[in-house]
Amino acid sequence: MNGAETLVKTLLASGVRVCFANPGTSEMHFVAALDRHPDMRCILSLFEGGVSGAADGYFRMSGELAATLLHLAPGFGNAFANLHNARKAQSGVVNIMGDHADYHLRFEAPLKGDTVGISQSVSHWTRVCSEPGRVASDGADAVQAARAKNGQIATLILPANMAWDAAEGHATAPPPPPLQRPSDAEIAAAARALRLPGAVFLVDGPVLWSDLGLLARRMTKAAGARLMQPFFAARFRRGAGAVKIERMAYRIEDNLTLLQGAPALVLCGTTRPAGFFAYPGKPSTPDDPDTRLIDLCTREMDIEWTLRALAAELGESELDEGDFVPLDLPALPEGALTVAKVGEAVATLMPENAVVVDEGISASYHLAPGLKRARGHDVLTITGGSIGFGLPNAVGAAVACPDRKVVVLEGDGSGMYTLQSLWTMAREGLDVTVVIFANRGYQILRDELAAVGVRDVGRNIARMFDVEQPTLDWVALARGHGVDAVRVADMAGFIAAFAEAMAQKGPRLIEVVC
Amino acid sequence: MNGAETLVKTLLASGVRVCFANPGTSEMHFVAALDRHPDMRCILSLFEGGVSGAADGYFRMSGELAATLLHLAPGFGNAFANLHNARKAQSGVVNIMGDHADYHLRFEAPLKGDTVGISQSVSHWTRVCSEPGRVASDGADAVQAARAKNGQIATLILPANMAWDAAEGHATAPPPPPLQRPSDAEIAAAARALRLPGAVFLVDGPVLWSDLGLLARRMTKAAGARLMQPFFAARFRRGAGAVKIERMAYRIEDNLTLLQGAPALVLCGTTRPAGFFAYPGKPSTPDDPDTRLIDLCTREMDIEWTLRALAAELGESELDEGDFVPLDLPALPEGALTVAKVGEAVATLMPENAVVVDEGISASYHLAPGLKRARGHDVLTITGGSIGFGLPNAVGAAVACPDRKVVVLEGDGSGMYTLQSLWTMAREGLDVTVVIFANRGYQILRDELAAVGVRDVGRNIARMFDVEQPTLDWVALARGHGVDAVRVADMAGFIAAFAEAMAQKGPRLIEVVC
Repeated sequence: MNGAETLVKTLLASGVRVCFANPGTSEMHFVAALDRHPDMRCILSLFEGGVSGAADGYFRMSGELAATLLHLAPGFGNAFANLHNARKAQSGVVNIMGDHADYHLRFEAPLKGDTVGISQSVSHWTRVCSEPGRVASDGADAVQAARAKNGQIATLILPANMAWDAAEGHATAPPPPPLQRPSDAEIAAAARALRLPGAVFLVDGPVLWSDLGLLARRMTKAAGARLMQPFFAARFRRGAGAVKIERMAYRIEDNLTLLQGAPALVLCGTTRPAGFFAYPGKPSTPDDPDTRLIDLCTREMDIEWTLRALAAELGESELDEGDFVPLDLPALPEGALTVAKVGEAVATLMPENAVVVDEGISASYHLAPGLKRARGHDVLTITGGSIGFGLPNAVGAAVACPDRKVVVLEGDGSGMYTLQSLWTMAREGLDVTVVIFANRGYQILRDELAAVGVRDVGRNIARMFDVEQPTLDWVALARGHGVDAVRVADMAGFIAAFAEAMAQKGPRLIEVVC
Repeated sequence: MNGAETLVKTLLASGVRVCFANPGTSEMHFVAALDRHPDMRCILSLFEGGVSGAADGYFRMSGELAATLLHLAPGFGNAFANLHNARKAQSGVVNIMGDHADYHLRFEAPLKGDTVGISQSVSHWTRVCSEPGRVASDGADAVQAARAKNGQIATLILPANMAWDAAEGHATAPPPPPLQRPSDAEIAAAARALRLPGAVFLVDGPVLWSDLGLLARRMTKAAGARLMQPFFAARFRRGAGAVKIERMAYRIEDNLTLLQGAPALVLCGTTRPAGFFAYPGKPSTPDDPDTRLIDLCTREMDIEWTLRALAAELGESELDEGDFVPLDLPALPEGALTVAKVGEAVATLMPENAVVVDEGISASYHLAPGLKRARGHDVLTITGGSIGFGLPNAVGAAVACPDRKVVVLEGDGSGMYTLQSLWTMAREGLDVTVVIFANRGYQILRDELAAVGVRDVGRNIARMFDVEQPTLDWVALARGHGVDAVRVADMAGFIAAFAEAMAQKGPRLIEVVC
């Protein structure tokens, strides 16, 4: 037995059952060890952004860690963008990054790179294995770190000789350390603030998709406070049966209006809201300067305990019909295709308890009104703003939830960053329907350019914002990856294609020309 | 005028004429400034790995800097792998990385990330602009840094408010500082060593593709020394008319044999050779322990001066026919397709002075014997070992050399990492022929697994090494990106397709089932 196998046994003993992988030569002994343990499910991605995004989606939907297997510094670089999104989603991920044998690093091999530097630029926890006999305990520490503080990015760098040298046994990850809690005085102060007329209780984390949402609603109802959530969240419940939680907007102007005049803004499981970007002459934060900001419980702290403690202070009102989103399916829209109508059709045709991965970017704005009227479903959003999150996250969500339909709402610009995940959907037979909104450009950038006051567009802007000449053919791209696909340009075509996709299992792509 | 425009003017005044771009909202003012300066050629890539790889290929073939435009830390992360290859190729690249307005960074916006940390993990030079009035001089310093030491990675981080705040004027990059040179005593000692029978002169850099190669050959001929080059090089000349320079091998075993018994190994423009990876029980370096290693001139030093100084010591012999590779085109092979035969057919059909981008990985081993017999051409190899280099580098090479045919020899596994570059080839009408060797798996990993002694392959290895179920359809993938493509499975088919591609301009892809 060698160090690599002690690590695989440690991961399994610690409850890690899935490894999203894109291995290389330096990971060869780890790969051989995985092969001796078929109880670890290894899922190949053809690009590392698919690996990290899948681990993120898997955590969001299962609450369980997945391991990733990445090839030295460049492989980690390719995974970086979706690790950034995972970090902002507060997903736990255990990265195993291979590296050269440590004695080889004093020479200038081509793949030698700054593994520690790039890991530390996105990971909460980084360690380089330095003794074969301690690879197992290093692995257990990595798992513990990834589970700490409600979910972290932990990266274990495994030099090849630590993997191939002899070692015995395995370790089991200890439970993460207890979460920090606010003091009784802080709870009491927050409760008093929430009783002020117009006070806002801003929540994130499991409150948005678990029964904790019921508790939050009961206590804000008792207090007379507004219950709100950030616009971007790792996961939230939407559609019929969801507890009513007001969602903040994308634009800073809209959020300024939403929060104007609130006497208090109490944060639980989230941080102070900030603009997605800064703009000249606009504030960075949407809260009213006269609002009292109470940073009660950060996302790393004990959210459930905090909610229960607050509820004990505020009391709980009974909930009634008015506290839940009613079932109000739209009629199937006809005629010329619009993105808003597509949202209505998706809402009506999507089954109960689907998982919607929302990377529609500019399209999502128009889709949201329809989707709010769908049957109850979970929504995953692009928490870190780094595009290319949708297709990989859908892979992870579908692996975590094989009995639920996964629907990806994807921009054509953003989908291109990690399109290789289509192949993994086909390989694994994942039940994912991908809807591509093909507006043939970076519509969000056209909007943002107008927002900074540029009206005249010349050649360089057109060449950087338009994805035309040639247009992308998403049907061909999907088929090239082994996924059935169809292009639609009117509502009848979309409804037929989407209904068919909902009626069967397996991956499917619909290109919506819009 | 604003900081962004002073930067665009500075780049242009400093001789930077091409910007490979994948912009986002934080770069909007820089984009608007580029739009006011159409003399800067902006080339869009749909993924940042295509941006950085193109800048690398552009430098390799033109010796000129290109700028890249990247969107915050995640965008830089996507560019990381090909920046790693560029760094190992010693290519000069100026990255402009947008960031949030500096005052916005104290809040937790989704895209806030460790821009400095990720930059420093691959760049030689990193600076954050901190005054609008100094953006221009910062830009000039970045250009100078990218040109220093024969080529470096320089990254300028441009917070959005530095771009949008008012500023005037522009700057021009000063010439890079003088290159370091060996002392006269070191030159004399190296010359003495090169006169020992069997001594090896290992060269890299412009010696491999410019007239300096003639000089190196004349002096090693005079000294009776062997002239050699590393296996991986940013650019080298191959085929008929090339100066004979012995190329080292990929495998450490072969290089041990090549260098065995050499009394001296003199390095000029390169570093001590090292194994691509370490393997249990094998040495990290191929030089004979009894060989005297003379680290005369690193790749950052003055290579041309060093060669001329050495030649003055050693003298120069006249060259004759035997010092150059003769024209020896293979006959067009027939019958069943093999990779070796494809190499012969490419050699015979490829025009004079083509640029071959070689990312065939395991296929390249079989292609090389044929290609050595081609007409004279330049070869770009995967200097940093990070796959996904081929298609983007070809974009940059084709932009740099619009009158030369670019041929990419690409593995199916490696091609998938940055396939989006196909679209840029179509958009820009680049004269690139891509040959994909579709062995439906990571053949190099199968080989490496055998090399570490694993014979029995179970489910997890098969699932991670084979790219099957489904197979990729490269013809569909190419067409999806707007590139004409054909699949061939025998030599007649390949010859017809490749001859047609050579006879016309523009991008074309040939999937070779092998």
